[in-house]
Amino acid sequence: MPDKPQLAITLGDPAGIGPEIIVAAWADPVVHELCRPLVVGQPEIVRRAVALLGSSATVVEISSPDEARPSEKSIPCLSAGDPSALDVAPRSIDARGGRAAYDALVAAARLALDGKIDGLVTAPLHKEALHAAGYDYPGHTELLATLCGVERSAMMLYLPPEPGRGGPAGLGVVHVTLHTSLRSVPDLLSEGAIVDCAWLISDVMQVLGDGTGFGTPRTHQTRIGVCALNPHAGEAGLFGDEEQTLIAPAVARARASGLFIEGPLPADTLMVRARDGEFDAVVAMYHDQGHIALKLLGMHRAVNITLGLPIVRTSVAHGTALDRAWLGTAESAGMIAAVRAAATLSRARRAGWVPVSLLAGYGENP
Amino acid sequence: MPDKPQLAITLGDPAGIGPEIIVAAWADPVVHELCRPLVVGQPEIVRRAVALLGSSATVVEISSPDEARPSEKSIPCLSAGDPSALDVAPRSIDARGGRAAYDALVAAARLALDGKIDGLVTAPLHKEALHAAGYDYPGHTELLATLCGVERSAMMLYLPPEPGRGGPAGLGVVHVTLHTSLRSVPDLLSEGAIVDCAWLISDVMQVLGDGTGFGTPRTHQTRIGVCALNPHAGEAGLFGDEEQTLIAPAVARARASGLFIEGPLPADTLMVRARDGEFDAVVAMYHDQGHIALKLLGMHRAVNITLGLPIVRTSVAHGTALDRAWLGTAESAGMIAAVRAAATLSRARRAGWVPVSLLAGYGENP
Repeated sequence: MPDKPQLAITLGDPAGIGPEIIVAAWADPVVHELCRPLVVGQPEIVRRAVALLGSSATVVEISSPDEARPSEKSIPCLSAGDPSALDVAPRSIDARGGRAAYDALVAAARLALDGKIDGLVTAPLHKEALHAAGYDYPGHTELLATLCGVERSAMMLYLPPEPGRGGPAGLGVVHVTLHTSLRSVPDLLSEGAIVDCAWLISDVMQVLGDGTGFGTPRTHQTRIGVCALNPHAGEAGLFGDEEQTLIAPAVARARASGLFIEGPLPADTLMVRARDGEFDAVVAMYHDQGHIALKLLGMHRAVNITLGLPIVRTSVAHGTALDRAWLGTAESAGMIAAVRAAATLSRARRAGWVPVSLLAGYGENP
Repeated sequence: MPDKPQLAITLGDPAGIGPEIIVAAWADPVVHELCRPLVVGQPEIVRRAVALLGSSATVVEISSPDEARPSEKSIPCLSAGDPSALDVAPRSIDARGGRAAYDALVAAARLALDGKIDGLVTAPLHKEALHAAGYDYPGHTELLATLCGVERSAMMLYLPPEPGRGGPAGLGVVHVTLHTSLRSVPDLLSEGAIVDCAWLISDVMQVLGDGTGFGTPRTHQTRIGVCALNPHAGEAGLFGDEEQTLIAPAVARARASGLFIEGPLPADTLMVRARDGEFDAVVAMYHDQGHIALKLLGMHRAVNITLGLPIVRTSVAHGTALDRAWLGTAESAGMIAAVRAAATLSRARRAGWVPVSLLAGYGENP
């Protein structure tokens, strides 16, 4: 087996469930089979989560990724941010918590951009705390795009394969628009953005598809369904024409360029068909169209993957869960799934896979 | 036990699965415990469905509802439309099929408006066939509103109670806007329409709530969650302000008027909370917001209920399923659930329940 990929896991907002789900996931042997993890954030916060869960692991402060010797019993932690994070009360919205999450993310993204780690897994941040700290981003996705100097990125939600949920590769949903008002959605859609999203998700699902976590590209194509914008796909133009003017031409272009793609399809029935395994991936036109479906299908197992970045980045799909943080009861399945996805993508990159986001063609669609 | 309510079941489009799911549901003793059903449409189509399913029931043509003597072995059928429906090929889109569905619906609605039956259950029509027949309605909901002379009605989807899905009363979702382009949604929303929808669904869920089909109003209040329009409920105005300008004021007004109501809440997490039983009812701002959730939670068990009409009307939530009609394999659970809901609402009306739609106040909200 080749060297395992090295992944940095950011602590997220110290008031939330990030620290405890990281420590809980750390105890799962599968995490250590898949990768060499290290934590980025204040080591003392990790120690508190270790104590909370009654873990016997030791937190080892390191000063660079090559010092990390992770195991189920040892948690290497690269310090980021400043100790003011230690004063953040559990379950509170605090600018110092927002700053701590920001600092850890910047430090980890820098390591990934410099090639010092293979990929990045992030624990949740709290947007109000982030704003209180002076960082006006609606979430990780936009912040990472800025850190990476990328103009266009896309948020994908991914459900790992499970009987009765999606196809053998699991189910991915990519969003053509994301953190924007519903009113602004129709004018933000473009043929090029839809084609880009289809290519991005096809590409990533090929890699994730084998489900083993070892990044072997599948030999069959990703089956993509594209959501309509309007109910009933606009009922042949009766209510809305974006299906004819934008989405159908985008699907035709994506198909001509080699994708296995169908649409526009009414979003409500497409989601049912995807759940039932007819599609591996769905292109959603806006945030709630994709999120309502994926959260119902498995909010706590879902992985958030940022497409279009030059680095590998995954996250849990849920939030900081301030109402139940630091009680030691948080579910770590999403964190383990996020680590698995990041490890898979990182392995594929080591084996020569080049994400389409890095190809010259990406982002040049009008 | 009082007289059972008499329900008319329309055949819908003869090319679709309507006739066979009616005959399949007819064989279920629970249907006859709950109501006295009769079919409205061409009797010969019903006979074909009886033959398809190998049923031993006899189709008895009647000329008025009071002649109906329904039983598991006898299907009273009031002829509607003309025999051209008999020439419609199974699984085809045909203007004659659209006309047959229209004629049956008009006849049954007339019976209900004239007080000759207690309520109306409709099998699916096919919108393209309806349009081909010259009737330009996006669906049953708008057509019924016109037939009843009602300016405002609302479409509700209802999932009967089931372990792990919604609360003890099941889960209802009402749509403030319905068959309209996504682009037009923000400007069609109004504070009054949101309050109306909340009252309508609260009222109907009280009646449906006991789950026995006997229409005993529940003693506890309907717990209503109201969806935000924008992702993350607009993130405090960062992307979209309809939460502050419209939805929050509507929720405050509805609460002041006595409803148990919360919102605006981000739609993706609200749907998960409603699925998990925290709410009995959800107010959705647009078609796909409600439909994506309800179809994922139980497309084939869901019931479509038209709120705001002076008559009781329910329907299956699925369509004509032309791809698999007349094969004798269609699932009748949705039809049975639709009959149960119509019987429940009809019983409640007989017992003195007055739907809020009939109160003077309804529809007068600005």
